[in-house]
Amino acid sequence: MDHFFAPTSLAVYGLSAKARNTPRIIVENCLRWGYCGRLFGINPATSDTDVAGIRVFRSAADLPLVPDLAVLLIPARFVPQAVEDCGRAGIKRLAIQAGGFNESSDQGKALAQQVQQLARAYGIRFVGPNGLTLADTASGLCLPFVPSFPVRPGGFSLITQSGGLGLFLWNLLQEEQIGLAKFASIGNKLDLDEGDFLEYLGRDPATRVIGLYLESIDDGKRLIERALATDKPVIVYKANTTSAGNRAAMSHTASLSNDDAIIDTAFARAGIIRIHHLHDFITTAKAFALPPMRGPRIMAMSPAGGLGVAMADLCERQGFAFADPGVDFYSELATIANAGIIRLSNPLDMGDLYRIDKYPLIFSHVLASPEVDGAVYVSQCPRMPGSGDDVFTAMFTTDLSAEMTGAVRSSDKPLALALYGDGSTISAMKQRVRIPIFNGPEEAILALYRQMRFHAQRAAGPFRPDTLPAAWDKTAIRDWLAGRDGVVGEETLELLTLCGLASPPAAVARTAGETARIAAAIGFPVALKVISPQAVHKTEAGGVLLGIDSADAAEAGFHRIRTRLKRYAPDAQFDGIRVVAMAPEGHDLFIGGLQDPSFGPVVFFGYGGTLVEVFDDVERVLCPSSREEIRRAMQRLKVWRILSGLRRQPAVDPEPFVAAVCSLSGLLAQYPEIAECDINPVRLAPNGTLLALDARLRIAHLE
Amino acid sequence: MDHFFAPTSLAVYGLSAKARNTPRIIVENCLRWGYCGRLFGINPATSDTDVAGIRVFRSAADLPLVPDLAVLLIPARFVPQAVEDCGRAGIKRLAIQAGGFNESSDQGKALAQQVQQLARAYGIRFVGPNGLTLADTASGLCLPFVPSFPVRPGGFSLITQSGGLGLFLWNLLQEEQIGLAKFASIGNKLDLDEGDFLEYLGRDPATRVIGLYLESIDDGKRLIERALATDKPVIVYKANTTSAGNRAAMSHTASLSNDDAIIDTAFARAGIIRIHHLHDFITTAKAFALPPMRGPRIMAMSPAGGLGVAMADLCERQGFAFADPGVDFYSELATIANAGIIRLSNPLDMGDLYRIDKYPLIFSHVLASPEVDGAVYVSQCPRMPGSGDDVFTAMFTTDLSAEMTGAVRSSDKPLALALYGDGSTISAMKQRVRIPIFNGPEEAILALYRQMRFHAQRAAGPFRPDTLPAAWDKTAIRDWLAGRDGVVGEETLELLTLCGLASPPAAVARTAGETARIAAAIGFPVALKVISPQAVHKTEAGGVLLGIDSADAAEAGFHRIRTRLKRYAPDAQFDGIRVVAMAPEGHDLFIGGLQDPSFGPVVFFGYGGTLVEVFDDVERVLCPSSREEIRRAMQRLKVWRILSGLRRQPAVDPEPFVAAVCSLSGLLAQYPEIAECDINPVRLAPNGTLLALDARLRIAHLE
Repeated sequence: MDHFFAPTSLAVYGLSAKARNTPRIIVENCLRWGYCGRLFGINPATSDTDVAGIRVFRSAADLPLVPDLAVLLIPARFVPQAVEDCGRAGIKRLAIQAGGFNESSDQGKALAQQVQQLARAYGIRFVGPNGLTLADTASGLCLPFVPSFPVRPGGFSLITQSGGLGLFLWNLLQEEQIGLAKFASIGNKLDLDEGDFLEYLGRDPATRVIGLYLESIDDGKRLIERALATDKPVIVYKANTTSAGNRAAMSHTASLSNDDAIIDTAFARAGIIRIHHLHDFITTAKAFALPPMRGPRIMAMSPAGGLGVAMADLCERQGFAFADPGVDFYSELATIANAGIIRLSNPLDMGDLYRIDKYPLIFSHVLASPEVDGAVYVSQCPRMPGSGDDVFTAMFTTDLSAEMTGAVRSSDKPLALALYGDGSTISAMKQRVRIPIFNGPEEAILALYRQMRFHAQRAAGPFRPDTLPAAWDKTAIRDWLAGRDGVVGEETLELLTLCGLASPPAAVARTAGETARIAAAIGFPVALKVISPQAVHKTEAGGVLLGIDSADAAEAGFHRIRTRLKRYAPDAQFDGIRVVAMAPEGHDLFIGGLQDPSFGPVVFFGYGGTLVEVFDDVERVLCPSSREEIRRAMQRLKVWRILSGLRRQPAVDPEPFVAAVCSLSGLLAQYPEIAECDINPVRLAPNGTLLALDARLRIAHLE
Repeated sequence: MDHFFAPTSLAVYGLSAKARNTPRIIVENCLRWGYCGRLFGINPATSDTDVAGIRVFRSAADLPLVPDLAVLLIPARFVPQAVEDCGRAGIKRLAIQAGGFNESSDQGKALAQQVQQLARAYGIRFVGPNGLTLADTASGLCLPFVPSFPVRPGGFSLITQSGGLGLFLWNLLQEEQIGLAKFASIGNKLDLDEGDFLEYLGRDPATRVIGLYLESIDDGKRLIERALATDKPVIVYKANTTSAGNRAAMSHTASLSNDDAIIDTAFARAGIIRIHHLHDFITTAKAFALPPMRGPRIMAMSPAGGLGVAMADLCERQGFAFADPGVDFYSELATIANAGIIRLSNPLDMGDLYRIDKYPLIFSHVLASPEVDGAVYVSQCPRMPGSGDDVFTAMFTTDLSAEMTGAVRSSDKPLALALYGDGSTISAMKQRVRIPIFNGPEEAILALYRQMRFHAQRAAGPFRPDTLPAAWDKTAIRDWLAGRDGVVGEETLELLTLCGLASPPAAVARTAGETARIAAAIGFPVALKVISPQAVHKTEAGGVLLGIDSADAAEAGFHRIRTRLKRYAPDAQFDGIRVVAMAPEGHDLFIGGLQDPSFGPVVFFGYGGTLVEVFDDVERVLCPSSREEIRRAMQRLKVWRILSGLRRQPAVDPEPFVAAVCSLSGLLAQYPEIAECDINPVRLAPNGTLLALDARLRIAHLE
């Protein structure tokens, strides 16, 4: 991959001396960026022998050497021929910028297949098509075909599924103090995709923060693995989350929409920072230009008291705690207060602290305090009459950037500086100052929150799934699954029993007498449930009776259920009655599972019943999961309040349920032939008893 | 109030020739801003006779005329004396900027009271203390004591409870193309408050949009009335919403926190645009610089396809519909496409439309289309090599502002332009261009959404509460309330019956025999409920029996409940049994009500039961309300899905419940002695029967 970003030699297809020749922009960009490798043009359709001093050949075969990389910005219909030309000449890496492939038409789809086949045949790897492909500030490679000045080099690398948006962002990065390392516009990602580039950038020494703009995630599992494999922050904007976004994507690059909640689940595990606002690429990248915030104790400061109030709201909403730098700190501040009318606390209203020469000391003392994990300071940068003989001019025009930077470097803690005011002044300042300048308290506080969260998760160590319980009889499970196909009903409880999730004692009765005998053996009270292929929804068919407390009632129940079934569906096949022990009272929860096409098996769980469906109070984890991960997810459920004791009800220990969810996550990971499952309800009794009362499964054996 | 903002004469207390004299900044600001009224200084403690050419007097009594306004920027302890000096001289308007009053200490509170008494005695109205007070770009008045250049005049007026934050905002307005009309920093608002200024600015011809930054809302009712009385957009940032924000506010200005959800409810009725991000003042003010968006059909355009996808997500989330400008429009576009590889639809990917000279036509046709209500266009403004002989340089550097403005003016529809890129260039452009430039697609789309909503609500006409039902026996209601005080239990159902909300037939029995007789008269089955002052929670006391279906069961039930009460509380007083008809099956909802100290009576309602408490699924309306308002609020409840038929359950007509909520809202508005009420549950049966099953009330007779 190194040779993709820093090729020692590069061939540009389609180069000619014609006016408005777009490939020439690529050559000009590389020269302007200081690319030092060798450069050639290839163009079978021109008689030009050189363009802007660069030699142009008719075919790759004519080149004096085999270039590391060739870039193809030519009409789609000529691409297969060019790929073949490259293949024959031994070129192994291509950047295919041309559009008009699978994103556009059936004809384009055929072209795309042709290119993939040729590449495979010649052992060629490629990025694109339909993308701006690659740029690298270190090597000076700049393939995007829009005229570009060199951008500020730095540690931010961007992988983008939209080239245009990528370029917009890179201009914005430039403006916002963020240097670029590498840029990959992956277009239709017919060969190299976000996972490949993430893997590479995760190990790339020049890259410190990785941003991704994605419209589809084809292989979510690999994306998660790659993100877990790097210790760098990974920021993802996943567009195309609504049906309208989806429509736009279909006509832009050929994309598939993913289930948004599953993406959140997966990203949470991998520590991927998901953003929903394009500008947050900037905010988050700036956040990581500051030292890590290692705890939640924040100090908020501003010369405008109202900003203190607003910041207090913001900090509290993000879960920050207000640091207390101590009595001595405030006493010292009091000595420099002017009118002495503003109470000094946190948030710190500095409106009365006119001694601007003391501000460096304040910042330094705040950050040095062992009670403080980080700080935010919001001030303004106004156009002001420059007399300078008054306190306000000094307050708002003195340049404290060196002192602030010093306080940050010496404490290794973050001070997020936000400035309001004159755009040109701030813009110039951003080009000059080395600590990030945020565009308001909202941005500054969000930035600190994001990096605090990231560092806390990394400090907690990488995710490790729990292993499958050793007690499981894997042969029995395998056999059980092998013997079935398609949808399986209440029988699923047998499989769950093999996995340690019990269900109430039950047996099947074929006659009224047998019903009474079995009920007596199980112990009253019992429930009776119809068995019939036509009664998928047993309750609707009148096929469920609860609280049967005597032999007579059991016999009567048998007849009643059979009569009701006949009434419900006259041709229904009656296969008997399932006699089930009544479960103890408790909370009815559910566990479901499915195979996500992108992220693999997922289990989801929550409280059962109608209301929870209305409130969409469901959590998810990827499989296999761990009890720890499931426990944290449980606590995010709103119904967690019910389990932990609402309205003086006793709290219930959720651990048996956590263990069951974890087992199911292991089961789905181990046996991908389980395409879907639904255990509902799962009853959790106050004494800790956990029983699966009903379950369904869909088995789809793999080819 | 006119004379507050445009005084024909102004006296500045505390003016002196001393270095760093802050009142002198006020004088300098007024002169710099072009204030043309007469100016005097007043300072009993100096021997200076003039400062910067302005005459200084020892007392207001010495002035050659009675000024329209005096500004007091002197230590708090001298303020009462100065107010008295003004009062004696006949000055009727003061701007008190000094801090050190009720926001700071007990001593300050005493000073505050003294100032209020003096002002009342002399018939003085004042703004402040502890604020920057007033500025007006039209009159040139600029009292804030921070050196200031004249700001761009315009239609935005700001009322702020934090002076510093107000100044920050005004610098930002300046930067962001928004001209200022009037500025009022109201500080502790001991006399004139946000309601007074809102009323004035609502009628002020120079003001087109009003912004408020508030930390407390003392008289919410008046704020709502004033906002309803103007047809101008009112934008409010209410800080101090969390406990931390509250703490900061207590040490900043003396503020009270309001219940945040009630504020939302009240603002929604008044059409007040509530923002939660300071920069949204700018976003929203910019929104109203565009013509109104009169419908939801939007056209989204960008030369970066990815931005189209991102915008599609944003538009859909805000509830916009995608406009279809028609086949002819797209056919025309196709003729100017370059490679013809991008499908043309909405969002419109203009990445292939290289003919920048055709862009004005595109904008004009889009806005002129009867199928389009508004449009957004996002592009970039990069630093680019300026050769200009390629399509991209033309695409991103051609100035289309005149054509865009033309398209907007000629169609009277909004085109929201967002630009990414070089800060200095965009900053300069913002100073030059007359249509707003937004800072990204998020801001542009939010802006359009805000003003579309505002105009839609205004178009629907002002809020009108429903009148009380004529059938109510007001004498009976008045007598019922007059005869009671404090907490009233199940008896409350009698009052509700007077208001048209029925409850199941019921009567009180003192003996077992009477219980059986009453039950028979009501008709079986019935419920039995204990009556005892000690059994506030009847169920806990074992005092409720349901489904009593015979005379024997009724007699047995009487004894059982009495026995259980004795066990629950041996000293409990047994006042008999309430025999109640069993209500039909249905949905259990609730209605509550309270008197909010700021916004007056409020009713709230939702689904009953534990889960709803967990999910906080409650809606509120101010009293009196209207059925229409309550109906809309009902539809925002998540449980609305249950009433409208979930899982093949039949839908239930919510109108009887809507009517009951509306009645209660009228009751609370009419009888403020009802301090709190709770009707829970209210059962709504599928056949439309509505019955209050239990209710409580707290009556607090007014003095």
